[in-house]
Amino acid sequence: MRKRFHQSLDELKEKLLVMAGFAEQAIQRSIEAYRTRDPELVELVRRSEPAINRLEREIDSTALDLLAMEQPMAVDLRFILSVIRINGDLERVGDLAVNIALRAGETNDLQPVDLPVDIPRMGTLAAAMIRKALEAFIDGDAQLAENVLALDDEVDTLNSAAFHALSNVIRNQPQYTSQALHAMLIARNLERVGDHATNIAEDVIFWVKGRDIRHAAPAA
Amino acid sequence: MRKRFHQSLDELKEKLLVMAGFAEQAIQRSIEAYRTRDPELVELVRRSEPAINRLEREIDSTALDLLAMEQPMAVDLRFILSVIRINGDLERVGDLAVNIALRAGETNDLQPVDLPVDIPRMGTLAAAMIRKALEAFIDGDAQLAENVLALDDEVDTLNSAAFHALSNVIRNQPQYTSQALHAMLIARNLERVGDHATNIAEDVIFWVKGRDIRHAAPAA
Repeated sequence: MRKRFHQSLDELKEKLLVMAGFAEQAIQRSIEAYRTRDPELVELVRRSEPAINRLEREIDSTALDLLAMEQPMAVDLRFILSVIRINGDLERVGDLAVNIALRAGETNDLQPVDLPVDIPRMGTLAAAMIRKALEAFIDGDAQLAENVLALDDEVDTLNSAAFHALSNVIRNQPQYTSQALHAMLIARNLERVGDHATNIAEDVIFWVKGRDIRHAAPAA
Repeated sequence: MRKRFHQSLDELKEKLLVMAGFAEQAIQRSIEAYRTRDPELVELVRRSEPAINRLEREIDSTALDLLAMEQPMAVDLRFILSVIRINGDLERVGDLAVNIALRAGETNDLQPVDLPVDIPRMGTLAAAMIRKALEAFIDGDAQLAENVLALDDEVDTLNSAAFHALSNVIRNQPQYTSQALHAMLIARNLERVGDHATNIAEDVIFWVKGRDIRHAAPAA
């Protein structure tokens, strides 16, 4: 009984990793769609959304079944609740990737222009935050989760800088307003991806802290 | 020319207020759907989403046209950029209302149970944050925007309390796991509504600060 339960937990973790892989890939592809102006990549990201949504529901329902049938104890309960919360964040990252891809698609129809913002760098950073947050989750590594929180400050700073630089473009080179605005909103979407990675990292800290408390002393 | 431009800005503001009204109403209805277990309200919230999404696109495209055609100066530019950002937050609030309504719908199929969480109170608070953030925007009132930031701490605290209390229900009364989990995720959605209200309030502060700087001294 307990053994089967722990197998089910491992399967749940596996599914969540697949979900995270989908979300990270969607972000990378959406940024690549922007960088290379490739309409097929825009379409690929758009078409990946239903699969991500389907997997989200599957994970939610597996987690709910485990909660309902197994009455898990403190640390396992925290683990399953963390999975449910992380799952919601990953689904939202998928949505943000679609937003970015659609803006990339609209940018494709406009004259190319060199803008004072490094979207690929922001995208790489945001995707790395998701990956690291999930690594922290797999390894139960609170220190790695703390690192993710530090990276979020970096993404926030890049987003603010992009906002100011691109406002200046709109003011001084109004012929590039559309391009600058799309870039500004893509940067903002990436900043939100960072926020979701932060949520995940905080869930890891919450889960690990619960585990450490259990290991350090008998529960009250 | 300038006069027509300022009329267009007023129209843009009007549309954003309609958008905010939709978003706030969707939140209130979704909470009411949960409180009263009324499936028609669930359906009403679900059906309101396309209208919110349509209005979002309309506002975006009006704002973009204004930017492209009018080459607005600093304070008007900041205003239009704020509208675009607030618009995105309001659309997301509409999504969260749909999430809440769907969970309310699933809760309707379960046995009613008294849970240690005051969802209507959290909902009222979150809806009030959206309303106050928009009021701050209309009046250019940075002080009111600051108040919204303070309310966000309250929603965050309620959400944390709900999380812990509902974890205990899942642990100690596993027969109510589904109900407790739905309530937990509704509370989390409301906490996110508060985050979006906070984003809006920060945009107001950003916009007003720009305006005050212009009024206080000549721009550099």
